[in-house]
Amino acid sequence: MKLGVVGLGKMGHNLVLNMMDKGHDVTAYDISQASIEAAEIEGIQTARSLQELCAALGDEKTVWIMVPAGEVVESIVEGLKHCMDQGDTIIDGGNSHYKDSIRRHDELRERGISFIDVGTSGGVEGARSGACMMIGGEEEDFKRLEALFEDLCVMGGCAYLGRSGSGHFAKMVHNGIEYGMLQAIGEGFEIIQRSGFEMDNEKLARVWSSGSVIRGWLMELCQRAFKNCPQLEGVKGKIASSGEGLWTVQEALELGVPASVITQSLLARYASNDDDSFSAKVVSALRREFGGHDVSK
Amino acid sequence: MKLGVVGLGKMGHNLVLNMMDKGHDVTAYDISQASIEAAEIEGIQTARSLQELCAALGDEKTVWIMVPAGEVVESIVEGLKHCMDQGDTIIDGGNSHYKDSIRRHDELRERGISFIDVGTSGGVEGARSGACMMIGGEEEDFKRLEALFEDLCVMGGCAYLGRSGSGHFAKMVHNGIEYGMLQAIGEGFEIIQRSGFEMDNEKLARVWSSGSVIRGWLMELCQRAFKNCPQLEGVKGKIASSGEGLWTVQEALELGVPASVITQSLLARYASNDDDSFSAKVVSALRREFGGHDVSK
Repeated sequence: MKLGVVGLGKMGHNLVLNMMDKGHDVTAYDISQASIEAAEIEGIQTARSLQELCAALGDEKTVWIMVPAGEVVESIVEGLKHCMDQGDTIIDGGNSHYKDSIRRHDELRERGISFIDVGTSGGVEGARSGACMMIGGEEEDFKRLEALFEDLCVMGGCAYLGRSGSGHFAKMVHNGIEYGMLQAIGEGFEIIQRSGFEMDNEKLARVWSSGSVIRGWLMELCQRAFKNCPQLEGVKGKIASSGEGLWTVQEALELGVPASVITQSLLARYASNDDDSFSAKVVSALRREFGGHDVSK
Repeated sequence: MKLGVVGLGKMGHNLVLNMMDKGHDVTAYDISQASIEAAEIEGIQTARSLQELCAALGDEKTVWIMVPAGEVVESIVEGLKHCMDQGDTIIDGGNSHYKDSIRRHDELRERGISFIDVGTSGGVEGARSGACMMIGGEEEDFKRLEALFEDLCVMGGCAYLGRSGSGHFAKMVHNGIEYGMLQAIGEGFEIIQRSGFEMDNEKLARVWSSGSVIRGWLMELCQRAFKNCPQLEGVKGKIASSGEGLWTVQEALELGVPASVITQSLLARYASNDDDSFSAKVVSALRREFGGHDVSK
Protein backbone atom coordinates (compact mmCIF):
# COMPACT_ATOMS: atom_id res chain seq x y z
CA MET A 1 0.00 0.00 0.00
CA LYS A 2 0.93 3.67 -0.33
CA LEU A 3 1.94 5.26 2.96
CA GLY A 4 4.04 7.98 4.52
CA VAL A 5 6.54 7.66 7.35
CA VAL A 6 7.66 10.55 9.55
CA GLY A 7 10.91 9.89 11.39
CA LEU A 8 14.04 8.36 9.88
CA GLY A 9 15.95 7.60 13.06
CA LYS A 10 17.27 4.07 13.66
CA MET A 11 13.78 2.63 14.13
CA GLY A 12 12.02 4.58 11.39
CA HIS A 13 14.75 4.08 8.79
CA ASN A 14 14.75 0.31 9.32
CA LEU A 15 10.98 0.09 9.42
CA VAL A 16 10.80 1.86 6.04
CA LEU A 17 13.26 -0.65 4.56
CA ASN A 18 11.11 -3.45 6.02
CA MET A 19 7.98 -1.88 4.42
CA MET A 20 9.73 -1.58 1.05
CA ASP A 21 10.83 -5.24 1.21
CA LYS A 22 7.16 -6.16 1.52
CA GLY A 23 6.27 -4.14 -1.57
CA HIS A 24 4.80 -1.05 0.07
CA ASP A 25 5.10 2.33 -1.65
CA VAL A 26 6.63 4.52 1.06
CA THR A 27 7.47 8.22 1.13
CA ALA A 28 9.40 9.33 4.19
CA TYR A 29 10.15 12.61 5.91
CA ASP A 30 12.49 13.63 8.71
CA ILE A 31 13.29 17.04 10.14
CA SER A 32 17.01 16.20 9.81
CA GLN A 33 18.49 16.73 6.37
CA ALA A 34 21.24 14.21 7.16
CA SER A 35 18.66 11.49 7.90
CA ILE A 36 16.87 12.26 4.65
CA GLU A 37 20.10 11.98 2.69
CA ALA A 38 21.02 8.70 4.40
CA ALA A 39 17.58 7.37 3.47
CA GLU A 40 17.90 8.47 -0.16
CA ILE A 41 21.20 6.61 -0.47
CA GLU A 42 19.26 3.43 0.34
CA GLY A 43 16.66 4.19 -2.28
CA ILE A 44 13.99 5.52 0.05
CA GLN A 45 11.64 8.10 -1.53
CA THR A 46 11.60 11.24 0.59
CA ALA A 47 9.62 14.41 1.04
CA ARG A 48 11.01 17.78 2.20
CA SER A 49 8.09 18.72 4.43
CA LEU A 50 4.94 17.30 5.97
CA GLN A 51 2.97 19.12 3.26
CA GLU A 52 5.03 17.50 0.51
CA LEU A 53 4.62 14.12 2.26
CA CYS A 54 0.84 14.48 2.37
CA ALA A 55 0.73 15.64 -1.25
CA ALA A 56 2.55 12.45 -2.29
CA LEU A 57 -0.06 10.22 -0.63
CA GLY A 58 -3.22 11.10 -2.59
CA ASP A 59 -6.59 10.31 -1.01
CA GLU A 60 -7.06 8.09 2.07
CA LYS A 61 -3.65 8.97 3.41
CA THR A 62 -1.88 6.80 5.98
CA VAL A 63 1.05 8.31 7.87
CA TRP A 64 3.20 6.31 10.27
CA ILE A 65 4.98 8.44 12.90
CA MET A 66 8.20 7.01 14.36
CA VAL A 67 9.73 9.79 16.48
CA PRO A 68 10.57 10.41 20.16
CA ALA A 69 7.60 10.67 22.52
CA GLY A 70 6.29 14.00 23.79
CA GLU A 71 6.68 17.34 22.06
CA VAL A 72 8.04 15.88 18.81
CA VAL A 73 4.97 13.67 18.33
CA GLU A 74 2.74 16.56 19.38
CA SER A 75 4.15 18.97 16.80
CA ILE A 76 4.00 16.38 14.00
CA VAL A 77 0.38 15.50 14.77
CA GLU A 78 -0.40 19.24 14.81
CA GLY A 79 1.37 19.64 11.46
CA LEU A 80 -0.47 16.68 9.94
CA LYS A 81 -3.82 18.15 10.94
CA HIS A 82 -3.22 20.85 8.32
CA CYS A 83 -2.80 18.40 5.48
CA MET A 84 -4.95 15.43 6.50
CA ASP A 85 -8.70 15.09 6.37
CA GLN A 86 -11.66 12.84 7.02
CA GLY A 87 -10.84 9.22 6.20
CA ASP A 88 -7.09 9.60 6.72
CA THR A 89 -5.11 7.68 9.33
CA ILE A 90 -2.22 8.47 11.64
CA ILE A 91 -0.28 5.59 13.22
CA ASP A 92 2.01 6.42 16.15
CA GLY A 93 4.56 3.59 16.33
CA GLY A 94 6.77 5.25 18.95
CA ASN A 95 6.79 5.16 22.73
CA SER A 96 4.16 7.82 23.45
CA HIS A 97 2.47 7.92 26.84
CA TYR A 98 -0.84 6.10 26.48
CA LYS A 99 -2.80 9.06 27.88
CA ASP A 100 -1.39 11.31 25.15
CA SER A 101 -2.40 8.70 22.59
CA ILE A 102 -5.97 8.54 23.91
CA ARG A 103 -6.17 12.36 23.81
CA ARG A 104 -4.82 12.49 20.24
CA HIS A 105 -7.18 9.70 19.17
CA ASP A 106 -10.19 11.56 20.57
CA GLU A 107 -9.20 14.94 19.10
CA LEU A 108 -8.44 13.50 15.66
CA ARG A 109 -11.61 11.43 15.65
CA GLU A 110 -13.63 14.63 15.89
CA ARG A 111 -12.09 15.58 12.55
CA GLY A 112 -12.78 12.12 11.10
CA ILE A 113 -9.08 11.20 11.21
CA SER A 114 -8.25 7.74 12.59
CA PHE A 115 -5.45 7.37 15.12
CA ILE A 116 -3.84 4.01 15.95
CA ASP A 117 -1.33 3.59 18.78
CA VAL A 118 1.31 0.94 18.11
CA GLY A 119 3.84 -0.13 20.72
CA THR A 120 6.80 -1.46 18.75
CA SER A 121 9.29 -3.90 20.28
CA GLY A 122 12.19 -5.97 19.00
CA GLY A 123 14.79 -3.24 18.69
CA VAL A 124 16.40 -2.06 15.48
CA GLU A 125 16.80 -5.64 14.23
CA GLY A 126 13.07 -6.21 14.73
CA ALA A 127 12.16 -3.01 12.87
CA ARG A 128 14.28 -4.15 9.94
CA SER A 129 13.29 -7.77 9.65
CA GLY A 130 10.29 -8.56 11.85
CA ALA A 131 9.00 -6.60 14.81
CA CYS A 132 6.52 -7.11 17.62
CA MET A 133 3.56 -4.70 17.61
CA MET A 134 0.99 -4.08 20.34
CA ILE A 135 -1.90 -2.21 18.76
CA GLY A 136 -4.70 -0.05 20.17
CA GLY A 137 -7.46 2.03 18.59
CA GLU A 138 -10.71 1.43 16.73
CA GLU A 139 -10.96 -2.19 15.69
CA GLU A 140 -12.17 -1.24 12.18
CA ASP A 141 -9.03 0.89 11.68
CA PHE A 142 -6.85 -2.01 12.77
CA LYS A 143 -8.66 -4.42 10.45
CA ARG A 144 -8.23 -2.06 7.50
CA LEU A 145 -4.47 -1.97 8.06
CA GLU A 146 -3.98 -5.46 9.47
CA ALA A 147 -2.13 -6.72 6.37
CA LEU A 148 0.43 -3.89 6.73
CA PHE A 149 1.04 -4.68 10.41
CA GLU A 150 1.35 -8.40 9.69
CA ASP A 151 3.89 -7.64 6.96
CA LEU A 152 6.13 -5.80 9.42
CA CYS A 153 6.00 -8.31 12.28
CA VAL A 154 7.31 -11.79 12.95
CA MET A 155 4.72 -14.56 12.93
CA GLY A 156 2.41 -14.00 15.91
CA GLY A 157 4.07 -10.68 16.69
CA CYS A 158 1.11 -8.44 15.83
CA ALA A 159 -1.85 -8.11 18.19
CA TYR A 160 -4.85 -5.81 18.36
CA LEU A 161 -5.29 -5.33 22.10
CA GLY A 162 -8.35 -3.08 22.31
CA ARG A 163 -9.48 0.52 22.58
CA SER A 164 -7.25 3.53 22.04
CA GLY A 165 -4.23 3.57 24.34
CA SER A 166 -4.03 -0.24 24.66
CA GLY A 167 -1.01 -0.50 22.40
CA HIS A 168 1.06 2.12 24.16
CA PHE A 169 -0.10 0.94 27.59
CA ALA A 170 1.01 -2.63 26.81
CA LYS A 171 4.33 -1.34 25.43
CA MET A 172 4.88 0.73 28.59
CA VAL A 173 4.34 -2.34 30.79
CA HIS A 174 6.52 -4.42 28.43
CA ASN A 175 9.33 -1.94 29.07
CA GLY A 176 8.70 -2.11 32.83
CA ILE A 177 9.08 -5.90 32.68
CA GLU A 178 12.20 -5.40 30.58
CA TYR A 179 13.70 -3.11 33.25
CA GLY A 180 13.14 -5.82 35.88
CA MET A 181 14.53 -8.62 33.71
CA LEU A 182 17.59 -6.59 32.73
CA GLN A 183 18.36 -5.66 36.32
CA ALA A 184 17.99 -9.30 37.47
CA ILE A 185 20.41 -10.41 34.75
CA GLY A 186 22.84 -7.63 35.66
CA GLU A 187 22.77 -8.56 39.34
CA GLY A 188 23.29 -12.23 38.54
CA PHE A 189 26.39 -11.57 36.48
CA GLU A 190 27.75 -9.25 39.19
CA ILE A 191 27.37 -12.00 41.81
CA ILE A 192 29.21 -14.39 39.46
CA GLN A 193 31.86 -11.75 38.74
CA ARG A 194 32.61 -11.08 42.43
CA SER A 195 32.34 -14.73 43.54
CA GLY A 196 35.95 -15.68 42.90
CA PHE A 197 34.90 -18.53 40.60
CA GLU A 198 36.46 -16.92 37.50
CA MET A 199 33.81 -18.17 35.13
CA ASP A 200 33.78 -17.25 31.46
CA ASN A 201 30.90 -14.77 31.11
CA GLU A 202 30.30 -15.54 27.46
CA LYS A 203 30.22 -19.29 28.10
CA LEU A 204 27.78 -18.74 30.95
CA ALA A 205 25.50 -16.56 28.83
CA ARG A 206 25.69 -19.18 26.09
CA VAL A 207 24.70 -22.07 28.38
CA TRP A 208 21.93 -19.94 29.97
CA SER A 209 20.68 -19.22 26.43
CA SER A 210 20.52 -22.91 25.60
CA GLY A 211 17.73 -24.88 27.21
CA SER A 212 17.64 -23.07 30.57
CA VAL A 213 14.55 -21.63 32.23
CA ILE A 214 15.90 -18.08 31.79
CA ARG A 215 16.66 -18.43 28.09
CA GLY A 216 15.42 -15.67 25.83
CA TRP A 217 16.51 -12.81 23.63
CA LEU A 218 18.05 -10.77 26.46
CA MET A 219 20.35 -13.66 27.41
CA GLU A 220 21.32 -14.10 23.76
CA LEU A 221 22.22 -10.41 23.64
CA CYS A 222 24.31 -10.97 26.79
CA GLN A 223 26.24 -13.67 25.00
CA ARG A 224 26.85 -11.30 22.09
CA ALA A 225 27.95 -8.47 24.41
CA PHE A 226 30.40 -10.70 26.32
CA LYS A 227 31.72 -12.16 23.07
CA ASN A 228 32.65 -8.68 21.88
CA CYS A 229 33.90 -7.61 25.27
CA PRO A 230 34.50 -10.39 27.87
CA GLN A 231 34.76 -8.05 30.87
CA LEU A 232 32.70 -5.25 29.30
CA GLU A 233 35.81 -3.11 29.13
CA GLY A 234 34.90 0.36 28.01
CA VAL A 235 31.24 0.03 28.97
CA LYS A 236 30.29 2.62 31.58
CA GLY A 237 28.00 1.36 34.35
CA LYS A 238 25.54 4.22 34.08
CA ILE A 239 22.08 3.20 32.88
CA ALA A 240 19.91 5.71 31.05
CA SER A 241 16.14 5.44 31.10
CA SER A 242 13.87 6.85 28.45
CA GLY A 243 10.66 7.19 30.45
CA GLU A 244 8.58 4.03 30.09
CA GLY A 245 9.99 2.51 33.29
CA LEU A 246 9.04 5.62 35.25
CA TRP A 247 5.56 5.63 33.67
CA THR A 248 5.08 1.97 34.58
CA VAL A 249 6.01 2.67 38.19
CA GLN A 250 3.75 5.76 38.30
CA GLU A 251 0.89 3.70 36.90
CA ALA A 252 1.51 0.85 39.35
CA LEU A 253 1.52 3.31 42.26
CA GLU A 254 -1.75 4.89 41.13
CA LEU A 255 -3.35 1.47 40.63
CA GLY A 256 -2.10 0.24 44.01
CA VAL A 257 -0.04 -2.56 42.47
CA PRO A 258 2.99 -3.45 44.65
CA ALA A 259 5.32 -3.63 41.64
CA SER A 260 8.37 -3.75 43.84
CA VAL A 261 10.80 -5.36 41.40
CA ILE A 262 9.98 -3.01 38.52
CA THR A 263 10.22 -0.06 40.92
CA GLN A 264 13.52 -1.31 42.30
CA SER A 265 14.94 -1.73 38.79
CA LEU A 266 14.15 1.93 38.07
CA LEU A 267 15.76 3.01 41.36
CA ALA A 268 18.84 0.94 40.48
CA ARG A 269 19.13 2.92 37.23
CA TYR A 270 18.87 6.21 39.08
CA ALA A 271 21.49 5.03 41.60
CA SER A 272 23.80 3.99 38.75
CA ASN A 273 23.88 7.60 37.58
CA ASP A 274 24.95 8.95 40.94
CA ASP A 275 28.67 8.55 41.52
CA ASP A 276 28.42 10.62 44.61
CA SER A 277 24.80 11.07 45.59
CA PHE A 278 23.73 13.53 48.23
CA SER A 279 21.84 10.71 49.97
CA ALA A 280 25.07 8.69 50.28
CA LYS A 281 26.85 11.79 51.58
CA VAL A 282 24.17 12.25 54.26
CA VAL A 283 24.40 8.60 55.38
CA SER A 284 28.20 8.75 55.40
CA ALA A 285 28.20 11.99 57.38
CA LEU A 286 25.76 10.57 59.95
CA ARG A 287 27.91 7.43 60.40
CA ARG A 288 30.82 9.75 61.21
CA GLU A 289 28.69 11.70 63.68
CA PHE A 290 27.43 8.75 65.70
CA GLY A 291 30.26 6.30 65.33
CA GLY A 292 33.36 8.23 64.35
CA HIS A 293 33.51 6.24 61.10
CA ASP A 294 35.86 7.52 58.43
CA VAL A 295 34.41 9.56 55.61
CA SER A 296 36.07 9.64 52.18
CA LYS A 297 36.80 13.21 51.12
CA MET B 1 27.71 -45.95 28.75
CA LYS B 2 26.72 -47.93 31.84
CA LEU B 3 25.57 -45.72 34.70
CA GLY B 4 23.38 -45.60 37.76
CA VAL B 5 20.81 -42.98 38.68
CA VAL B 6 19.56 -42.34 42.21
CA GLY B 7 16.26 -40.48 42.37
CA LEU B 8 13.22 -41.17 40.21
CA GLY B 9 11.23 -38.02 40.92
CA LYS B 10 9.96 -35.91 38.02
CA MET B 11 13.46 -34.79 37.05
CA GLY B 12 15.28 -38.09 37.60
CA HIS B 13 12.64 -40.22 35.89
CA ASN B 14 12.69 -38.03 32.78
CA LEU B 15 16.47 -37.78 32.75
CA VAL B 16 16.71 -41.60 32.78
CA LEU B 17 14.34 -41.82 29.80
CA ASN B 18 16.51 -39.21 28.04
CA MET B 19 19.64 -41.29 28.81
CA MET B 20 17.99 -44.47 27.50
CA ASP B 21 16.95 -42.69 24.29
CA LYS B 22 20.63 -41.91 23.73
CA GLY B 23 21.57 -45.58 24.14
CA HIS B 24 22.94 -45.48 27.68
CA ASP B 25 22.62 -48.56 29.90
CA VAL B 26 20.95 -47.15 33.03
CA THR B 27 20.05 -48.80 36.33
CA ALA B 28 18.00 -46.61 38.64
CA TYR B 29 17.12 -46.58 42.32
CA ASP B 30 14.69 -44.58 44.43
CA ILE B 31 13.77 -44.88 48.09
CA SER B 32 10.11 -44.86 47.07
CA GLN B 33 8.69 -48.20 45.95
CA ALA B 34 5.98 -46.39 43.97
CA SER B 35 8.59 -44.45 41.97
CA ILE B 36 10.47 -47.67 41.23
CA GLU B 37 7.30 -49.34 39.99
CA ALA B 38 6.40 -46.34 37.82
CA ALA B 39 9.89 -46.51 36.31
CA GLU B 40 9.66 -50.25 35.64
CA ILE B 41 6.41 -49.75 33.73
CA GLU B 42 8.37 -47.53 31.35
CA GLY B 43 11.05 -50.20 30.91
CA ILE B 44 13.62 -48.65 33.24
CA GLN B 45 15.97 -51.18 34.90
CA THR B 46 15.87 -50.72 38.65
CA ALA B 47 17.78 -51.74 41.75
CA ARG B 48 16.30 -52.25 45.22
CA SER B 49 19.12 -50.62 47.15
CA LEU B 50 22.26 -48.54 46.69
CA GLN B 51 24.27 -51.74 47.14
CA GLU B 52 22.32 -53.51 44.39
CA LEU B 53 22.74 -50.41 42.20
CA CYS B 54 26.51 -50.41 42.68
CA ALA B 55 26.70 -54.15 42.07
CA ALA B 56 24.98 -53.67 38.70
CA LEU B 57 27.58 -51.14 37.54
CA GLY B 58 30.78 -53.22 37.55
CA ASP B 59 34.12 -51.40 37.68
CA GLU B 60 34.51 -47.64 37.11
CA LYS B 61 31.06 -46.89 38.39
CA THR B 62 29.27 -43.65 37.56
CA VAL B 63 26.25 -42.71 39.67
CA TRP B 64 24.06 -39.70 38.90
CA ILE B 65 22.18 -38.35 41.94
CA MET B 66 18.95 -36.45 41.21
CA VAL B 67 17.30 -35.86 44.60
CA PRO B 68 16.33 -32.87 46.81
CA ALA B 69 19.23 -30.85 48.20
CA GLY B 70 20.44 -31.19 51.77
CA GLU B 71 20.01 -34.27 53.96
CA VAL B 72 18.79 -36.51 51.15
CA VAL B 73 21.91 -35.88 49.06
CA GLU B 74 24.05 -36.22 52.18
CA SER B 75 22.68 -39.65 53.09
CA ILE B 76 22.96 -40.96 49.54
CA VAL B 77 26.57 -39.81 49.22
CA GLU B 78 27.28 -41.47 52.59
CA GLY B 79 25.61 -44.66 51.37
CA LEU B 80 27.55 -44.64 48.10
CA LYS B 81 30.84 -44.35 49.99
CA HIS B 82 30.27 -47.92 51.16
CA CYS B 83 29.98 -49.35 47.68
CA MET B 84 32.16 -47.05 45.59
CA ASP B 85 35.90 -46.93 45.32
CA GLN B 86 38.88 -45.27 43.70
CA GLY B 87 38.16 -44.38 40.06
CA ASP B 88 34.39 -44.17 40.54
CA THR B 89 32.39 -41.00 39.95
CA ILE B 90 29.41 -39.35 41.61
CA ILE B 91 27.48 -36.69 39.70
CA ASP B 92 25.10 -34.49 41.69
CA GLY B 93 22.60 -33.09 39.19
CA GLY B 94 20.29 -31.56 41.80
CA ASN B 95 20.13 -28.13 43.43
CA SER B 96 22.70 -28.65 46.21
CA HIS B 97 24.29 -25.65 47.87
CA TYR B 98 27.65 -25.09 46.19
CA LYS B 99 29.50 -25.13 49.51
CA ASP B 100 28.12 -28.63 50.23
CA SER B 101 29.26 -29.71 46.78
CA ILE B 102 32.79 -28.41 47.34
CA ARG B 103 32.92 -30.22 50.71
CA ARG B 104 31.68 -33.48 49.16
CA HIS B 105 34.12 -33.13 46.27
CA ASP B 106 37.04 -32.68 48.65
CA GLU B 107 36.03 -35.54 50.96
CA LEU B 108 35.40 -37.96 48.11
CA ARG B 109 38.60 -36.97 46.35
CA GLU B 110 40.57 -38.19 49.37
CA ARG B 111 39.10 -41.64 48.66
CA GLY B 112 39.89 -41.32 44.94
CA ILE B 113 36.23 -40.86 44.06
CA SER B 114 35.42 -38.09 41.59
CA PHE B 115 32.56 -35.71 42.32
CA ILE B 116 30.99 -33.48 39.66
CA ASP B 117 28.41 -30.79 40.47
CA VAL B 118 25.86 -30.25 37.74
CA GLY B 119 23.27 -27.48 37.89
CA THR B 120 20.39 -28.68 35.72
CA SER B 121 17.90 -26.27 34.17
CA GLY B 122 15.09 -26.52 31.66
CA GLY B 123 12.46 -28.10 33.88
CA VAL B 124 10.90 -31.52 33.42
CA GLU B 125 10.62 -31.01 29.64
CA GLY B 126 14.33 -30.23 29.48
CA ALA B 127 15.24 -33.32 31.51
CA ARG B 128 13.23 -35.46 29.09
CA SER B 129 14.29 -34.07 25.77
CA GLY B 130 17.24 -31.69 26.15
CA ALA B 131 18.41 -29.91 29.29
CA CYS B 132 20.81 -27.12 30.18
CA MET B 133 23.73 -28.18 32.41
CA MET B 134 26.19 -25.97 34.28
CA ILE B 135 29.09 -28.17 35.32
CA GLY B 136 31.81 -27.87 37.96
CA GLY B 137 34.57 -30.17 39.20
CA GLU B 138 37.90 -31.49 37.92
CA GLU B 139 38.23 -30.77 34.22
CA GLU B 140 39.53 -34.29 33.52
CA ASP B 141 36.37 -35.77 35.08
CA PHE B 142 34.21 -33.53 32.94
CA LYS B 143 36.15 -34.47 29.79
CA ARG B 144 35.75 -38.19 30.54
CA LEU B 145 31.97 -37.80 30.77
CA GLU B 146 31.51 -34.96 28.29
CA ALA B 147 29.77 -37.17 25.72
CA LEU B 148 27.16 -38.19 28.31
CA PHE B 149 26.45 -34.57 29.25
CA GLU B 150 26.23 -33.53 25.60
CA ASP B 151 23.75 -36.35 24.97
CA LEU B 152 21.41 -35.02 27.65
CA CYS B 153 21.52 -31.32 26.70
CA VAL B 154 20.24 -29.18 23.88
CA MET B 155 22.90 -27.89 21.48
CA GLY B 156 25.10 -25.45 23.38
CA GLY B 157 23.36 -26.29 26.66
CA CYS B 158 26.29 -28.01 28.35
CA ALA B 159 29.18 -26.01 29.80
CA TYR B 160 32.14 -26.84 32.02
CA LEU B 161 32.45 -23.71 34.16
CA GLY B 162 35.45 -24.51 36.34
CA ARG B 163 36.51 -25.88 39.70
CA SER B 164 34.24 -27.78 42.09
CA GLY B 165 31.16 -25.80 43.06
CA SER B 166 31.02 -23.79 39.83
CA GLY B 167 28.07 -25.74 38.47
CA HIS B 168 25.89 -25.38 41.54
CA PHE B 169 26.98 -21.77 42.07
CA ALA B 170 25.96 -20.87 38.51
CA LYS B 171 22.66 -22.73 38.93
CA MET B 172 21.98 -20.86 42.19
CA VAL B 173 22.51 -17.50 40.46
CA HIS B 174 20.44 -18.71 37.49
CA ASN B 175 17.57 -19.31 39.90
CA GLY B 176 18.08 -15.88 41.47
CA ILE B 177 17.79 -14.30 38.01
CA GLU B 178 14.72 -16.46 37.41
CA TYR B 179 13.10 -15.13 40.62
CA GLY B 180 13.63 -11.56 39.41
CA MET B 181 12.35 -12.24 35.90
CA LEU B 182 9.28 -14.09 37.16
CA GLN B 183 8.40 -11.32 39.59
CA ALA B 184 8.81 -8.64 36.88
CA ILE B 185 6.47 -10.62 34.60
CA GLY B 186 3.97 -11.11 37.42
CA GLU B 187 3.96 -7.41 38.25
CA GLY B 188 3.53 -6.47 34.60
CA PHE B 189 0.46 -8.65 34.18
CA GLU B 190 -1.01 -7.32 37.42
CA ILE B 191 -0.66 -3.72 36.16
CA ILE B 192 -2.38 -4.78 32.93
CA GLN B 193 -5.06 -6.65 34.88
CA ARG B 194 -5.92 -3.71 37.11
CA SER B 195 -5.63 -1.05 34.38
CA GLY B 196 -9.20 -1.27 33.15
CA PHE B 197 -8.04 -1.99 29.60
CA GLU B 198 -9.52 -5.51 29.57
CA MET B 199 -6.77 -7.01 27.46
CA ASP B 200 -6.65 -10.69 26.61
CA ASN B 201 -3.81 -12.07 28.74
CA GLU B 202 -3.08 -14.97 26.42
CA LYS B 203 -2.96 -12.68 23.38
CA LEU B 204 -0.62 -10.34 25.23
CA ALA B 205 1.68 -13.20 26.29
CA ARG B 206 1.63 -14.45 22.69
CA VAL B 207 2.60 -11.09 21.20
CA TRP B 208 5.27 -10.58 23.89
CA SER B 209 6.62 -14.03 22.97
CA SER B 210 6.87 -13.10 19.30
CA GLY B 211 9.65 -10.73 18.36
CA SER B 212 9.60 -8.54 21.50
CA VAL B 213 12.62 -7.66 23.63
CA ILE B 214 11.21 -9.69 26.56
CA ARG B 215 10.58 -12.84 24.53
CA GLY B 216 11.83 -16.09 26.00
CA TRP B 217 10.75 -19.35 27.53
CA LEU B 218 9.10 -17.79 30.58
CA MET B 219 6.82 -15.67 28.36
CA GLU B 220 5.97 -18.75 26.28
CA LEU B 221 5.01 -20.54 29.50
CA CYS B 222 2.83 -17.52 30.36
CA GLN B 223 1.00 -17.94 27.10
CA ARG B 224 0.44 -21.61 27.87
CA ALA B 225 -0.78 -20.86 31.40
CA PHE B 226 -3.24 -18.18 30.22
CA LYS B 227 -4.44 -20.44 27.41
CA ASN B 228 -5.39 -23.10 29.92
CA CYS B 229 -6.78 -20.59 32.38
CA PRO B 230 -7.39 -17.03 31.06
CA GLN B 231 -7.79 -15.40 34.51
CA LEU B 232 -5.72 -18.04 36.35
CA GLU B 233 -8.86 -19.23 38.07
CA GLY B 234 -7.98 -21.79 40.71
CA VAL B 235 -4.34 -20.70 40.95
CA LYS B 236 -3.55 -19.53 44.48
CA GLY B 237 -1.31 -16.44 44.69
CA LYS B 238 1.11 -17.93 47.18
CA ILE B 239 4.61 -18.49 45.84
CA ALA B 240 6.79 -21.21 47.30
CA SER B 241 10.56 -20.97 47.18
CA SER B 242 12.88 -23.93 47.31
CA GLY B 243 16.03 -22.25 48.60
CA GLU B 244 18.17 -21.10 45.70
CA GLY B 245 16.70 -17.59 45.75
CA LEU B 246 17.53 -17.22 49.44
CA TRP B 247 21.05 -18.57 48.82
CA THR B 248 21.57 -16.09 45.99
CA VAL B 249 20.53 -13.21 48.23
CA GLN B 250 22.73 -14.47 51.09
CA GLU B 251 25.67 -14.74 48.71
CA ALA B 252 25.02 -11.26 47.26
CA LEU B 253 24.90 -9.79 50.77
CA GLU B 254 28.17 -11.47 51.76
CA LEU B 255 29.86 -10.33 48.53
CA GLY B 256 28.53 -6.78 48.93
CA VAL B 257 26.56 -6.92 45.68
CA PRO B 258 23.49 -4.62 45.78
CA ALA B 259 21.25 -7.26 44.20
CA SER B 260 18.12 -5.30 45.00
CA VAL B 261 15.81 -6.79 42.39
CA ILE B 262 16.66 -10.41 43.20
CA THR B 263 16.29 -9.61 46.91
CA GLN B 264 12.98 -7.88 46.32
CA SER B 265 11.67 -10.83 44.32
CA LEU B 266 12.42 -13.11 47.28
CA LEU B 267 10.69 -10.72 49.69
CA ALA B 268 7.67 -10.61 47.35
CA ARG B 269 7.44 -14.41 47.64
CA TYR B 270 7.59 -14.24 51.41
CA ALA B 271 4.92 -11.52 51.43
CA SER B 272 2.72 -13.64 49.15
CA ASN B 273 2.60 -16.30 51.83
CA ASP B 274 1.40 -13.93 54.53
CA ASP B 275 -2.33 -13.31 54.35
CA ASP B 276 -2.18 -11.45 57.57
CA SER B 277 1.39 -10.68 58.50
CA PHE B 278 2.37 -9.42 61.93
CA SER B 279 4.25 -6.57 60.27
CA ALA B 280 1.05 -5.41 58.53
CA LYS B 281 -0.81 -5.68 61.84
CA VAL B 282 1.78 -3.48 63.52
CA VAL B 283 1.60 -0.82 60.78
CA SER B 284 -2.18 -0.92 60.83
CA ALA B 285 -2.29 -0.61 64.62
CA LEU B 286 0.12 2.35 64.57
CA ARG B 287 -1.97 4.16 61.93
CA ARG B 288 -4.93 3.80 64.28
CA GLU B 289 -2.90 5.13 67.19
CA PHE B 290 -1.62 8.28 65.54
CA GLY B 291 -4.39 9.05 63.09
CA GLY B 292 -7.48 7.25 64.28
CA HIS B 293 -7.57 5.30 61.00
CA ASP B 294 -9.88 2.31 60.85
CA VAL B 295 -8.42 -1.13 61.44
CA SER B 296 -10.01 -4.23 59.93
CA LYS B 297 -10.78 -6.80 62.62
